Amino acid sequence: MAGKFISMRNLKFLLYEVFDTVALTKAPYYQQHNQKSFDLVLDAANKIAQKKFYPLFEEMDRKPPYLENGQVKVHPAVRDIMIEAGDGGWIGAAFPEAWGGEQLPHILHCACHLITSAANYSAGVYSELTSGAARLIHSFASDDLKQKYLPNMMAGKWQGTMALTEPQAGSSLSDITTSAYPTDQGYYRLKGTKVFISAGDHDGADNVVHMLLGRIEGAPAGVKGISLFLVPKLRVEGAQLVPNDVNVSQVFHKMGYRGAPITELSFGDKDACRAYLVGEPNRGLGYMFQMMNGARIGVGLGATAIASAAYYASLDYCKTRPQGRKLGQKDPKTPQVAIIEHADIRRMLLFQRAVVEGSESLLMQCALYEDTMYCRPREEHEKYELLLDLLTPMAKTYPSEMAILSTSQAIQCLGGYGYCEDFPVEQHFRDCRIHPIHEGTTGIQGMDLLGRKVVMKDGKAFMLFLEEAHATLAQAQGLASVEPLCRQFEAALKSLAQLTAQLAGSAATRGAEVYLADATLYLEMFGIIAIAWQWLKQAVTSQKALDGKAKAADQNFYQGKLVTANYFFAYELPKIGYLVQRLTDGNPLTVTMESSFFND
Amino acid sequence: MAGKFISMRNLKFLLYEVFDTVALTKAPYYQQHNQKSFDLVLDAANKIAQKKFYPLFEEMDRKPPYLENGQVKVHPAVRDIMIEAGDGGWIGAAFPEAWGGEQLPHILHCACHLITSAANYSAGVYSELTSGAARLIHSFASDDLKQKYLPNMMAGKWQGTMALTEPQAGSSLSDITTSAYPTDQGYYRLKGTKVFISAGDHDGADNVVHMLLGRIEGAPAGVKGISLFLVPKLRVEGAQLVPNDVNVSQVFHKMGYRGAPITELSFGDKDACRAYLVGEPNRGLGYMFQMMNGARIGVGLGATAIASAAYYASLDYCKTRPQGRKLGQKDPKTPQVAIIEHADIRRMLLFQRAVVEGSESLLMQCALYEDTMYCRPREEHEKYELLLDLLTPMAKTYPSEMAILSTSQAIQCLGGYGYCEDFPVEQHFRDCRIHPIHEGTTGIQGMDLLGRKVVMKDGKAFMLFLEEAHATLAQAQGLASVEPLCRQFEAALKSLAQLTAQLAGSAATRGAEVYLADATLYLEMFGIIAIAWQWLKQAVTSQKALDGKAKAADQNFYQGKLVTANYFFAYELPKIGYLVQRLTDGNPLTVTMESSFFND
Repeated sequence: MAGKFISMRNLKFLLYEVFDTVALTKAPYYQQHNQKSFDLVLDAANKIAQKKFYPLFEEMDRKPPYLENGQVKVHPAVRDIMIEAGDGGWIGAAFPEAWGGEQLPHILHCACHLITSAANYSAGVYSELTSGAARLIHSFASDDLKQKYLPNMMAGKWQGTMALTEPQAGSSLSDITTSAYPTDQGYYRLKGTKVFISAGDHDGADNVVHMLLGRIEGAPAGVKGISLFLVPKLRVEGAQLVPNDVNVSQVFHKMGYRGAPITELSFGDKDACRAYLVGEPNRGLGYMFQMMNGARIGVGLGATAIASAAYYASLDYCKTRPQGRKLGQKDPKTPQVAIIEHADIRRMLLFQRAVVEGSESLLMQCALYEDTMYCRPREEHEKYELLLDLLTPMAKTYPSEMAILSTSQAIQCLGGYGYCEDFPVEQHFRDCRIHPIHEGTTGIQGMDLLGRKVVMKDGKAFMLFLEEAHATLAQAQGLASVEPLCRQFEAALKSLAQLTAQLAGSAATRGAEVYLADATLYLEMFGIIAIAWQWLKQAVTSQKALDGKAKAADQNFYQGKLVTANYFFAYELPKIGYLVQRLTDGNPLTVTMESSFFND
Repeated sequence: MAGKFISMRNLKFLLYEVFDTVALTKAPYYQQHNQKSFDLVLDAANKIAQKKFYPLFEEMDRKPPYLENGQVKVHPAVRDIMIEAGDGGWIGAAFPEAWGGEQLPHILHCACHLITSAANYSAGVYSELTSGAARLIHSFASDDLKQKYLPNMMAGKWQGTMALTEPQAGSSLSDITTSAYPTDQGYYRLKGTKVFISAGDHDGADNVVHMLLGRIEGAPAGVKGISLFLVPKLRVEGAQLVPNDVNVSQVFHKMGYRGAPITELSFGDKDACRAYLVGEPNRGLGYMFQMMNGARIGVGLGATAIASAAYYASLDYCKTRPQGRKLGQKDPKTPQVAIIEHADIRRMLLFQRAVVEGSESLLMQCALYEDTMYCRPREEHEKYELLLDLLTPMAKTYPSEMAILSTSQAIQCLGGYGYCEDFPVEQHFRDCRIHPIHEGTTGIQGMDLLGRKVVMKDGKAFMLFLEEAHATLAQAQGLASVEPLCRQFEAALKSLAQLTAQLAGSAATRGAEVYLADATLYLEMFGIIAIAWQWLKQAVTSQKALDGKAKAADQNFYQGKLVTANYFFAYELPKIGYLVQRLTDGNPLTVTMESSFFND
């Protein structure tokens, strides 16, 4: 197996041409970086992806984790990959220097993560989770906990996790029951079960540190009684590591994403599990959202990366596979053409490219908002926080849902071969199906967007988004080739604003149930518009580069960008029409129907 | 594993209430049947499905076929299932009595096939392929070949296949090169390779009879030089079975559909493969279309059946899984509700039901057109043939494409559990992905519809379809609850007619390449409208049943039908809007772009 799984050219286009990443280095926090050092980081990520991640893509799927004597066994390469992530500074990339970090902008980290995940999504999960857990500890834990647990996590020796979901609660976090009983020793005694915990246990790390949501005995019911705990598999007592009564009861056998274990964990079977409170009691959900929001962006990123790998596998096939002739050519004695010459194949390739490069752009946009915060005075932070908050449901969901369709089209390009294990696309299709589920299902994201993000602070985040979108329109002024896209985008924004106002108005008159019944469709519509915005940005940048006499070698690249933007506006953006039609037709059938209508 | 995979109530609703299947028994060909005998057949199919097929659903996936010493090994139950299909009369169900058949209407066969395929799609493939191959032999082969090969096929002892695809040709049948050299012994010497042949070899049958497309030495290039051959694995010579130099070079390892082998076959490695011509030389493709059209309907049926099984698995989960509360209920101390109470879950269930029961209806519609032909004088046959021809691409493609989304929503209903092997839905998702590929990809179906079916005989088939659709509108007259659906459907038909005329007009002015560039989207639109038509029929039937004072026990069923029809018209039919927008925007970007734009 060999091949291309991501376009470095495209990542650099986004980083340096669409987004002015280098401008970040003017800020004190990022001042030790410059474009050259960014390029070195990207090249290092690409090297690891090519050498370490990609060769194991298939093997880690074929030899999935298993449970043996209470220990999850994973591919031996996992330990190596974790140590490399630690030694190479990847786990601490975005951390402050004071903690041994690199103070690398998130947008760079995003690009690197796209590269490694495209090579082998499962292999990258271990260190990314560790990085997210470490960040949570760094932000909210006591100095004592930081000293005891952070260094080994940053070094890639210990695994970090997020442990939220419980069997009886699922998405309904208010119903978690894992209980923490206070002691006078400064720790809590923990009892409970967590399920679907990625990398919850494995033999590729010497210890596992769970960032866990639980309920202190006597805490208020619901989300207001949830606290955040650090719960290690082996706890640090002086120079000793002591088993902490954390047990693996199950490792799940999954359709895809088989290179990483998802586990069920049981805490305190022998009443000997110690949990350490992080931050204030009962404020755990708020803290956890830091890690969760990062994880949601990470999910969108994983989906995008997998779709990218599938796209390049199918593109390679379509360029080299001869079959059929142009429709005008009726003589069966002429040679067959490569299937990339067929319009329907090009449509399937453009679809994949539009999804992949549109999603990459939106993810980098989100990362840049976070980075920009660090460069601006405190009073400007809210703006970027709000934009990031608003866009997170789309950055998680659009790639997750579309990767299913995009990898499916990759299979379709290969025909029967795509359905077989000889080519990687069937694995991509299986791998990506997890993404609309974990870290908050698509349904949860829809309710988060329409029920919370769009209306919070009197719709301030939504207004900021419209301003940002109009700023892109302003940049397009005078570019004749982009003009039709601008008009279409303006109409889409208007439609979104009207719809949002209409829905918000109906919330009061028709109740929350009806208001949120089709929140998933609203999210779908907003996602399409967010990606259209990113494609408009890319089209503007590309047209300006062409007008500025781009090098001959780059002409195809920019022309390809313009065609793909045009594809998106011709084939994808019009989909908002039927979503608006449904969202405004006033028929609340999913609310008013009886569940018994499903009987027969 | 236990559960429901299809609704017998719904199949009988379609057979006896929407379609007047019993009326067929007035015709001489079907006169030995009546509703009671139909019910017995359905119950027999259900019994086999429950007892033989369903228990092996998971196991046949986990123990896929493998190649050993030049023989494909399949699950031991395959032999048993084949013999049962023979002894029970399933293989010959639609055959005339003269050949030991049951003269069963295709619409009944369709219902039975839905039942068994929903229980275990792979397990049903063996006998269905045998039945199709036997039918082809019966229609076109010499009496000698019939006598030698049909009885053992009808008895389920020998496997039948269709052997079309070749590695270098794929969908481009004009490029097949398998060569038949005439001898003076009445047979041809065959040489060539066929790929992706379902059930092409296995140890569950004593022999395999390939219906194969090849080219007689010196035949014209292209499709006009293709002949149909019968090529046995073991040929009948007197009382002897002689090995016929047919070799398995590969069994493919697939993502799903793992209960049946897909093989690569090599014919005549030792110059000792004998092929027997079926029908006239160079007319093979025309003959093969009989089996292929049946197989295409069979693919739509398999996709529908798999989506049905996934739907019932997810419905069962949603009824029993407690999680969260109604949005109005803010007290976290109240008990959780079953997730079927949530609007977003109901939307996902209604989507699945709309796809499944809409597709079932369209497939039965097609079968009924075929059956009706046998009941009418010869001069009326063309009408039903044309309708069947026109609808076949939709009956193949709508279920195939939508089953991917439908089974995906089934997974989503189960959340993390849906992604794991403990529940059947992940297998359904994997199993159904083959369907947009085999027996003519979706792209091929689109070109068949727009390039051939819609325009053939000056658009006669298309006109007949419009007449049929308007007949349904006429039946809805006076039903107030269905009135809004009628208006929406009328507008959709008008839109389809206008679009079709506009596209046909552009074929001459803009060329075939542009005309057919988005044929897949045209097919998608036509498919949605065809399913809307079937939902309108079901809504009309249900409303009339309710008006006629349906039994209390049936009220929920009919109300459920009306809600699902309303779902389809509110959420699915509006999608034609964006398809029309794209199909008429006049931007042929997939034709005019350069393939080099995909470089970077």
